[in-house]
Amino acid sequence: MREIRVRRLWSQDRPAVNGWLHIPCGWAAELMAHQGWDSLTVDLQHGPVGFDPCVAMFQAMAATEVTPLARVPWNDPGWIMRVLDAGAMGIICPLVNSREECERFVGACRYPPQGYRSMGPTRVGLYAGPDYVEHANQAVIAMAMVETREALERVEEIVATPGLDAVYIGPSDLSMSLRGRPGLDFTDSEMLDAIRTVARAARAQGVIPGIHCGSPQYARRMVAEGFRFVTLLSDGRLLANAARAVLAAMRAPDTERPSAPRPETGPY
Amino acid sequence: MREIRVRRLWSQDRPAVNGWLHIPCGWAAELMAHQGWDSLTVDLQHGPVGFDPCVAMFQAMAATEVTPLARVPWNDPGWIMRVLDAGAMGIICPLVNSREECERFVGACRYPPQGYRSMGPTRVGLYAGPDYVEHANQAVIAMAMVETREALERVEEIVATPGLDAVYIGPSDLSMSLRGRPGLDFTDSEMLDAIRTVARAARAQGVIPGIHCGSPQYARRMVAEGFRFVTLLSDGRLLANAARAVLAAMRAPDTERPSAPRPETGPY
Amino acid sequence: MREIRVRRLWSQDRPAVNGWLHIPCGWAAELMAHQGWDSLTVDLQHGPVGFDPCVAMFQAMAATEVTPLARVPWNDPGWIMRVLDAGAMGIICPLVNSREECERFVGACRYPPQGYRSMGPTRVGLYAGPDYVEHANQAVIAMAMVETREALERVEEIVATPGLDAVYIGPSDLSMSLRGRPGLDFTDSEMLDAIRTVARAARAQGVIPGIHCGSPQYARRMVAEGFRFVTLLSDGRLLANAARAVLAAMRAPDTERPSAPRPETGPY
Amino acid sequence: MREIRVRRLWSQDRPAVNGWLHIPCGWAAELMAHQGWDSLTVDLQHGPVGFDPCVAMFQAMAATEVTPLARVPWNDPGWIMRVLDAGAMGIICPLVNSREECERFVGACRYPPQGYRSMGPTRVGLYAGPDYVEHANQAVIAMAMVETREALERVEEIVATPGLDAVYIGPSDLSMSLRGRPGLDFTDSEMLDAIRTVARAARAQGVIPGIHCGSPQYARRMVAEGFRFVTLLSDGRLLANAARAVLAAMRAPDTERPSAPRPETGPY
Amino acid sequence: MREIRVRRLWSQDRPAVNGWLHIPCGWAAELMAHQGWDSLTVDLQHGPVGFDPCVAMFQAMAATEVTPLARVPWNDPGWIMRVLDAGAMGIICPLVNSREECERFVGACRYPPQGYRSMGPTRVGLYAGPDYVEHANQAVIAMAMVETREALERVEEIVATPGLDAVYIGPSDLSMSLRGRPGLDFTDSEMLDAIRTVARAARAQGVIPGIHCGSPQYARRMVAEGFRFVTLLSDGRLLANAARAVLAAMRAPDTERPSAPRPETGPY
Amino acid sequence: MREIRVRRLWSQDRPAVNGWLHIPCGWAAELMAHQGWDSLTVDLQHGPVGFDPCVAMFQAMAATEVTPLARVPWNDPGWIMRVLDAGAMGIICPLVNSREECERFVGACRYPPQGYRSMGPTRVGLYAGPDYVEHANQAVIAMAMVETREALERVEEIVATPGLDAVYIGPSDLSMSLRGRPGLDFTDSEMLDAIRTVARAARAQGVIPGIHCGSPQYARRMVAEGFRFVTLLSDGRLLANAARAVLAAMRAPDTERPSAPRPETGPY
Repeated sequence: MREIRVRRLWSQDRPAVNGWLHIPCGWAAELMAHQGWDSLTVDLQHGPVGFDPCVAMFQAMAATEVTPLARVPWNDPGWIMRVLDAGAMGIICPLVNSREECERFVGACRYPPQGYRSMGPTRVGLYAGPDYVEHANQAVIAMAMVETREALERVEEIVATPGLDAVYIGPSDLSMSLRGRPGLDFTDSEMLDAIRTVARAARAQGVIPGIHCGSPQYARRMVAEGFRFVTLLSDGRLLANAARAVLAAMRAPDTERPSAPRPETGPY
Repeated sequence: MREIRVRRLWSQDRPAVNGWLHIPCGWAAELMAHQGWDSLTVDLQHGPVGFDPCVAMFQAMAATEVTPLARVPWNDPGWIMRVLDAGAMGIICPLVNSREECERFVGACRYPPQGYRSMGPTRVGLYAGPDYVEHANQAVIAMAMVETREALERVEEIVATPGLDAVYIGPSDLSMSLRGRPGLDFTDSEMLDAIRTVARAARAQGVIPGIHCGSPQYARRMVAEGFRFVTLLSDGRLLANAARAVLAAMRAPDTERPSAPRPETGPY
Repeated sequence: MREIRVRRLWSQDRPAVNGWLHIPCGWAAELMAHQGWDSLTVDLQHGPVGFDPCVAMFQAMAATEVTPLARVPWNDPGWIMRVLDAGAMGIICPLVNSREECERFVGACRYPPQGYRSMGPTRVGLYAGPDYVEHANQAVIAMAMVETREALERVEEIVATPGLDAVYIGPSDLSMSLRGRPGLDFTDSEMLDAIRTVARAARAQGVIPGIHCGSPQYARRMVAEGFRFVTLLSDGRLLANAARAVLAAMRAPDTERPSAPRPETGPY
Repeated sequence: MREIRVRRLWSQDRPAVNGWLHIPCGWAAELMAHQGWDSLTVDLQHGPVGFDPCVAMFQAMAATEVTPLARVPWNDPGWIMRVLDAGAMGIICPLVNSREECERFVGACRYPPQGYRSMGPTRVGLYAGPDYVEHANQAVIAMAMVETREALERVEEIVATPGLDAVYIGPSDLSMSLRGRPGLDFTDSEMLDAIRTVARAARAQGVIPGIHCGSPQYARRMVAEGFRFVTLLSDGRLLANAARAVLAAMRAPDTERPSAPRPETGPY
Repeated sequence: MREIRVRRLWSQDRPAVNGWLHIPCGWAAELMAHQGWDSLTVDLQHGPVGFDPCVAMFQAMAATEVTPLARVPWNDPGWIMRVLDAGAMGIICPLVNSREECERFVGACRYPPQGYRSMGPTRVGLYAGPDYVEHANQAVIAMAMVETREALERVEEIVATPGLDAVYIGPSDLSMSLRGRPGLDFTDSEMLDAIRTVARAARAQGVIPGIHCGSPQYARRMVAEGFRFVTLLSDGRLLANAARAVLAAMRAPDTERPSAPRPETGPY
Repeated sequence: MREIRVRRLWSQDRPAVNGWLHIPCGWAAELMAHQGWDSLTVDLQHGPVGFDPCVAMFQAMAATEVTPLARVPWNDPGWIMRVLDAGAMGIICPLVNSREECERFVGACRYPPQGYRSMGPTRVGLYAGPDYVEHANQAVIAMAMVETREALERVEEIVATPGLDAVYIGPSDLSMSLRGRPGLDFTDSEMLDAIRTVARAARAQGVIPGIHCGSPQYARRMVAEGFRFVTLLSDGRLLANAARAVLAAMRAPDTERPSAPRPETGPY
């Protein structure tokens, strides 16, 4: 079976650096896939991306080694199974707040007897190889989001779910749930405590901790905290930031902005 | 009729800063339209963008003040007229190498008696207002590309074409034509001479000179040379550069990269 | 934050006149958005419209003041949250038959602590403004459909759900449920009684009553009954009726049809 | 081969009533196809419709007897042949201004030896039947637009082109060309003379005269003038007019508008 | 109402031969619809097909007599009702493991009082005819999949669900559930026993037994066992097999492959 | 630069076996790309495929070694250049009837000074590698179709066009042109003479002869005649033939059809 880059990194205790796809378009996904990300996650929850462009995005990534993942809109077995059959090598599931919900999620990612996934790996069988079915239960990454107070309180039972590979912290939702405000890259002790609690519980069970980050600086810090799956912004945010930076450099040159991207003049 | 931001800037002798769209997707176009560009050009020539996503991109930009433009694949009246009817307020036409070709191009942008554009402003009438037809011949921007030795030699007759609003230098094609190598942001005297020749000829006729640039620094220099329409990279290139920058900052922190975008954590 | 036209009308005790979109197409939505509707609802339940065209339709409406709404296929938090993030300023939820179901629905429309909506206003943050999150819980319109006998019987507990903004009567389903036949614009006492029961219960709780109508005449009557959200047919029905009317006028002129639309010859 | 409704009507000297499609969407086309039009023309010239939705629209019409036609963006054999292979039973070609242009157009519609159409009736062979190729040169409707002063002056030589089936007057472009103003449903003598000149020249050669109309009243008048192909508005215009009519009836009831469509409450 | 070919065959105790659609494309569906299948099922569960292409596929089939069906991703009333409104004349529902689940499924296919389907047959009303609603509860085919040990054990109570028309065996999932290996066209006694158990239970209740097959030979055997709904492979599998067969015949001619398709040279 | 499989085979004097894509869909293209074709040609001329699905199809093939090609609708530089920028490694151009037309075609495939292709390898630069521009003039395959009497008569001057790589016989059009009937796999002496004339002229100039075939048997014969590029049917034809074969085997078993595909039960 095709090697899964994220799993290989994890087996070496190295972090996977994940990109986040909100632009529902094969070309944007193909471009991102060639930039060196370890994995790319199509965000079907908060991005304006339906199932059909998600398939096209997976196809556009398939020529590279990047691991294709998806965040599903909800802990819904229909969504989870369709996205796996379409080529996701792993699923990030939002709002997993209990052991029962986690079992429901993990079960949808696993063929019997480990789970209740239905057999029909239409596209993924082509992508991953003819022996996909044989290896799928070990290969497919099941990553549950811990992003509410409820989940935080039950994190130990959640991470103990058999077959769960990773947990993923959504800091903005978690902060909303804990204290009513969104955000990213928190450094206050309340959030750092929560983040460390999740990481510690996960690693104790051999589960990989992951987290959504807003900057490479913060992501590096999280790697130092033991996280092995870190997301950096989204394609849309990267594009908007880059556009604003060149426009600022164009219009307000006196303020020497060191952050203006250096020109790079390749084909696209 | 709806105001055309690019025309207003030109009337004030100010440069229009133009973005370049290769990602065939309404969401990417909408994001770009909110970043402060004066105009956005859908590149139907070199981008993987067909007519249908171009319409969706124009729709996604319509809530902002950005002027929608398109570069057509070829000096083809069918393409030019369809794109105008779909909402482009101006056309950049590649490879205009003679007065005759320029007249053919400009004529396709103008209703009789100035030209031979067919009447049917289906979407643009909704976008620009019920009096669009009355003003269209003055409003629609006709911008011819000067990007070959042949065009350079004939630039004076080209810029004298009645109804032509602007010329646009494609530096990569022009350099290919002049000396067999592509590129952007040239500073050698051969290319600077060519660029200045075009700018001078254009301004002598009251025609706006424009140019494709690879950096804000170069674009500023071109503005100083009298250019009043400057393009900065493309959406795809901005996205790829930004992705590579954050990945580099993530993986090679010792090399302090000042160009790493600062985290910005808005909704997308 | 961007003003929500429907909310402004309601604050003045004026009715919002709502259009209904079944044609999965940006151009049809853009056309409708320019005709003067107060709101337009993308019908994801009964229309042949999936998530991706819904996004394109929202984008095509964004240049106008029309309030974008969606009817979701089911009381499903995944659908509700995705559509809100994509730009809906309100959700019409079908088949809300109990207080519990209503709470589940309203909770999906509200960020904590009022509800359990996940944070990620990707497109809506661009559409509605950078302060969207701050105002979203007050801004987003949660409208529950009352369209079964069960819901009718429990209407008082349903309308008392905290955070519910409006109820919406689906007369056809309600009539099916009450007596086994579909229809619209009922004037018999059984249906009028039911309709008045809903309106009265709603208004007693400060909840706006709305209803699906088949004609302006009936909609006016419903406004007189206290309804403040009335839908007139659908785009498909309007198109089909108009086509049939002109064809009839073309072919059977002796029967002077006063309903033949007068020619109007604008751009589209 | 499948019967072509427009040809059957013409063989009975009866007019074909044609609808005009600008909404790039299978559902809108399918709805229109069920309303009783004799033919429906996908307007690839002025409508926001590319090749791919055109194919989908043809597919959505195929279950009805309506004759599928297309107006191509330009007198371009690539466009003409692709659209025929995709299922158009006839082509309306804009801006045919001379005998030579008309021959070029008609030749693109005919297999050798009558023309130079390339062999490959991929979808149309399925739609029209296995004997399509045998009958195609007689079946496919070639309709040239007469819409400029130049074409009007040369109309006799144009209509004498072997293989031409019909001419189609674009009154708006013709009026623009003759006197610089657009419009529809002209009743002044200058335009009526021009229109009659075209009709007379066409009928003298056994060529069907057709015209774009803005109302059934005018279309009936044109039928009385000998026209046998009349178009009534477009889908977009029908939809917008209908929406405005119901909104006006909703909001300004005192002005009794006889043109308000009567409610019709079917499934869509 | 339009005749439903599958129902007519069943009324004659004849098997319906069903095709399976994984290619999310109107043209592929249209091609398949013209080859003589009794029904075609859009597989929304395991195929890379979202809701929007499903609608286009139904439209492309509508000109033929083939019965349009869909397999939904999950036993989810939102999915079931939308697909019915879009034109499916029947639903295959995966993983129906109990009487309760079966009732939930069947109820979503039936208008009150038999079920809880919501009224809004937008496209299907056009496809099936104006009297669709009147006949829908008798017409729409509700087919529950029996594909787990659990379902097998409860098959008698499942098939006794009022309103259920058919059961459909997914042999691969059933074999996975029973003994941990996937496959098709099983001939071992364990699977044959299971298959016969289902068929017997179904027929005892007047419910049609159906099964997914990998070859015409096996499908014929299943018909002999009493099955009246048999699926043969999928479009993707047919295409891949055919491609491999011609490539093998091209490259390894010595091995005379009798299975090489004979050339057939029609339009597509 | 990425190796071009077709060029490698040609350098070894081995034939490239080409598949033909009419299904406008990434999944069908991806399936085909995994079956072992040397190249796959998206047929933009006779297939129902526009530019946007063509890009998606190229993306879906990119993970395999298959060489992506396109047949353009017409000898139109706009089409040729866009398709090359989108990832085609070669162009098949229809109806090249003279040396002048051939030069126009080849020039559109070559950067200056060999031709007049415009610089902007947006997607192909990503697909083929950063050194694409350097190698493109040698790499891109320019294949002119010889398919009319006129072209046959001028074949020697056509094949002598500098930079032309290959010629491609369209037997159906050629037979139509020579004697008024379409077809494939001709074995009569008139067509064989014509075919051999083309092959001989081509090989004398070091130009590769290619031909469209309807069966592996005929393609093998053509390889024996010196052809080094042979196409086998189209995806649509393969699918339809395979569907008809399994249906025939299902329904008429007595006629033992040796051509029934053997069941193969992989993932799709």
